[in-house]
Amino acid sequence: CVVSSCFRASEEEQQAQSKKALKKQQKEAEKAAKKAEKQAKLVSVRQETQTLPMAHHCRMEGFLFFYNSCDYKSADRALVRVQDLTPEKAEQQIWVRARIHTSRAKGKQCFLVLRHQQFTVQALLAVGDRASKQMVKFAANLTKESIIDVEAVVKKVEQKIESCSQQDVELHVERIFVISQSEARLPLQLEDAVRPEGEGDEEGRATVNQDTRLDNRVIDLRTTTSQAIFRLQSGVCQLFRDTLINKGFVEIQTPKIISAASEGGANVFTVSYFKTSAYLAQSPQLYKQMCICADFDKVFCVGPVFRAEDSNTHRHLTEFVGLDIEMAFNYHYHEVIDSITDTMVQIFKGLRDRFQTEIQTVNKQYPSEPFKFLEPTLRLEYKEAVAMLRAAGVEMGDEEDLSTPNEKLLGRLVKEKYDTDFFVLDKYPLAVRPFYTMPDPNNAKYSNSYDMFMRGEEILSGAQRVHDAQLLTERAMHHGIDLEKIKAYIDSFRYGAPPHAGGGIGLERVTMLYLGLHNVRQTSMFPRDPKRLTP
Amino acid sequence: CVVSSCFRASEEEQQAQSKKALKKQQKEAEKAAKKAEKQAKLVSVRQETQTLPMAHHCRMEGFLFFYNSCDYKSADRALVRVQDLTPEKAEQQIWVRARIHTSRAKGKQCFLVLRHQQFTVQALLAVGDRASKQMVKFAANLTKESIIDVEAVVKKVEQKIESCSQQDVELHVERIFVISQSEARLPLQLEDAVRPEGEGDEEGRATVNQDTRLDNRVIDLRTTTSQAIFRLQSGVCQLFRDTLINKGFVEIQTPKIISAASEGGANVFTVSYFKTSAYLAQSPQLYKQMCICADFDKVFCVGPVFRAEDSNTHRHLTEFVGLDIEMAFNYHYHEVIDSITDTMVQIFKGLRDRFQTEIQTVNKQYPSEPFKFLEPTLRLEYKEAVAMLRAAGVEMGDEEDLSTPNEKLLGRLVKEKYDTDFFVLDKYPLAVRPFYTMPDPNNAKYSNSYDMFMRGEEILSGAQRVHDAQLLTERAMHHGIDLEKIKAYIDSFRYGAPPHAGGGIGLERVTMLYLGLHNVRQTSMFPRDPKRLTP
Repeated sequence: CVVSSCFRASEEEQQAQSKKALKKQQKEAEKAAKKAEKQAKLVSVRQETQTLPMAHHCRMEGFLFFYNSCDYKSADRALVRVQDLTPEKAEQQIWVRARIHTSRAKGKQCFLVLRHQQFTVQALLAVGDRASKQMVKFAANLTKESIIDVEAVVKKVEQKIESCSQQDVELHVERIFVISQSEARLPLQLEDAVRPEGEGDEEGRATVNQDTRLDNRVIDLRTTTSQAIFRLQSGVCQLFRDTLINKGFVEIQTPKIISAASEGGANVFTVSYFKTSAYLAQSPQLYKQMCICADFDKVFCVGPVFRAEDSNTHRHLTEFVGLDIEMAFNYHYHEVIDSITDTMVQIFKGLRDRFQTEIQTVNKQYPSEPFKFLEPTLRLEYKEAVAMLRAAGVEMGDEEDLSTPNEKLLGRLVKEKYDTDFFVLDKYPLAVRPFYTMPDPNNAKYSNSYDMFMRGEEILSGAQRVHDAQLLTERAMHHGIDLEKIKAYIDSFRYGAPPHAGGGIGLERVTMLYLGLHNVRQTSMFPRDPKRLTP
Repeated sequence: CVVSSCFRASEEEQQAQSKKALKKQQKEAEKAAKKAEKQAKLVSVRQETQTLPMAHHCRMEGFLFFYNSCDYKSADRALVRVQDLTPEKAEQQIWVRARIHTSRAKGKQCFLVLRHQQFTVQALLAVGDRASKQMVKFAANLTKESIIDVEAVVKKVEQKIESCSQQDVELHVERIFVISQSEARLPLQLEDAVRPEGEGDEEGRATVNQDTRLDNRVIDLRTTTSQAIFRLQSGVCQLFRDTLINKGFVEIQTPKIISAASEGGANVFTVSYFKTSAYLAQSPQLYKQMCICADFDKVFCVGPVFRAEDSNTHRHLTEFVGLDIEMAFNYHYHEVIDSITDTMVQIFKGLRDRFQTEIQTVNKQYPSEPFKFLEPTLRLEYKEAVAMLRAAGVEMGDEEDLSTPNEKLLGRLVKEKYDTDFFVLDKYPLAVRPFYTMPDPNNAKYSNSYDMFMRGEEILSGAQRVHDAQLLTERAMHHGIDLEKIKAYIDSFRYGAPPHAGGGIGLERVTMLYLGLHNVRQTSMFPRDPKRLTP
């Protein structure tokens, strides 16, 4: 056994120890206490905890758990989650594992707020029958963010505890064990990190800027807001896949290291590959299309997408997660649009119905209007959008692409007119789309291509693809593309290819826009941009 | 409308055309026929099809579908899938879209085998009431792998058609439309590509070697075997995630471009990142562990993993898909092993119950024993494995790692003794595991780490991780690792970290070993190895 002796925080357990071991420990404790006293003069009071004898011993008690050794039969002990602490559990004696969110000593009492994920509960230690003076002092000195196990009785409270998620109960603590101790000096304070924007300024209280958050992501991700954002994002992925699997789609895995830059080689990262060099895939499109040519009919993939664009905006990342769809259709590419929009609607409904707790948690810090959508999804033609923008005073040509501000404006106009935050813009001008986009059969200026928007920002770009090698060659030549470089791509269509369409969705943008957030770095756990490669 | 006129293959529809347009088309057809005649002297008979006038026109008819224009109201036409062609549909007039798998003309008849994904059906055209002589000739000349729509009557057959998956019915074809025409010369023949190993040699028939398959993956993926393999693999991913989501896991997305090579920098790909350089992640481990330190408790991710190892074996790829798990536990890392093994068991059961068609399809080409597993999963200690190997005549030290042949042998010994193809090997010698592995509290020579095996090959490597910054520092120093390089990693554990364990599963290996295949390239759609970067 690595840890040869243990020290229990409660009187009862102390007696169980042999007197000899106890004496030895007390000696050590005294020694440590003296050392601590000395150090305390040099460092802040908060930091003392680490060298306090009780903390030291209790920490060793904690160690026992993860070594699972010695005599402590801890595995018999069921742990109750903070979120499950409700009035139904009143008067029950339970064990809870949580972090110390805040700690406040007041005479013979110590108030802790314990936190687990999105949930918090108040815990009280008072000198008396249940806790010794020593133990209350010990608790008061524990560092914030330490993980502890407490044995406690659940008590109903008369007045709601507004500062906690569990407002109707508190814990009366009888024992505390430290599982893992935090350093005293935190790089950011969690209370600051969840303060609503603006509120900090008004009250002169600190908020945490984005770089500090991202530099210390392991702590920033602990905030109730981050916990909620990424649980909801996990839901987006699951809803996306479940919907498509139900529709008969097959999940595929496409390579990220590729031998040739798919679209001419701009904005692509280069990789050293043994004695040669390779690229990181800017999209799985070629591979999705090859799967269509290989008869998988309906495929999707979820994976990283790499863009070496030096764009430092609120919505660009150099690495993001693509939710990609490609689908053979029978007669019209609108079959594919319908599949994609229905998938988005299932995502919106699933989030609304299953992630209300997460949405509410995020709204506390970042208030936003609930996300609105129509069934069936609104589909506008590009022409109509141009007309709406012109009516609103925008000067633009028929075949001109939409600027980002015009997309935003269009989003507002559509919201006013149709009361939806989600719509499809169909039939983009052929000139502004890639060479593999199928031209519109009825008007050579337009194409069978589309974007999808959430709250006025693009989340998907897609099209019917040219599936005929000859037409593809013609279109590539028209765009001045070196045919030699895309030979493998064109050859994929020489052995029979079904008509097909698809699109790629940016996961982080969907989460950001659904929640009404304003920066894609909030919805990427470890964002990558031209200036950020860590953590 | 891009295609201004159409030519129908059936008599009935031909009459619907204006005589003028018909005349014009006939003229064109004659012209094209003359040209074709000329070319036919130069090229093979098979290739003629492309220039035959009927093919040309029918191809244009096909074009009409994906332009969705002109007068053809095709969208009203429901398509029946090949797999749904059963005796219950006998005497029904239906439409089917499929590829021409084989084609054989015989006097006034033409037999086609139509294929869609894993399924095939025989189709018959005979000169008579239903088809013209011209049409039969046209059908006989269609290239293999072309995609066609046929209108046909489903007919029960008296004798089972052994060569097709749909053995009880055939189609009596009335109309054919070409959706997409294949070039006549295929880089590989699908019949050859599905021939069982060995059978080709015996009968002097061709099989297709692996490089030819992979070079022409878009065709090789069309084989019934490939269709089955990758549908089953999609199932592995879905079962993995569904099981974990049900257990309360959260899906995370981890970055693939990282600033520092996690384990010393060997076997890592370098990426040019704007003005600096970066690396491709060899595993998501650091990020999974950060999520645990950030209170997500139970996380998983599915994504690419990159290894710059110059290993040219049957089981190594330079890019593969990792199914990664990391989980905080309460008292013992066996809680995590139990979660992982239960997840694997759910996958095995799901495959067995939902993918029998796929398993049977693969077995036709690659026969193998059904995959066996126990509930609960067998867990052996490393010591026991060494004892079993020694009893079988292997000489090895207590703290020596298992060689690949010894792993294989162990797999056979375990299968003999316990009748299972899946087991966990627990408590590896500390010396053969990475620095972040938690030592065994009871024996300093061993560690809280484990591998999992399928049919004697490793599919997962995992461990309890050291979650204490101080112990982690000691372990790293003991391994002679430069502390400066792993500072960020160690710092992640300074602000309270729950005890946790995890592991990474190789998706392609799971699929390969479950199906009893012999090369991981068979279960990677577009494999990457030191010598292969394409397609």
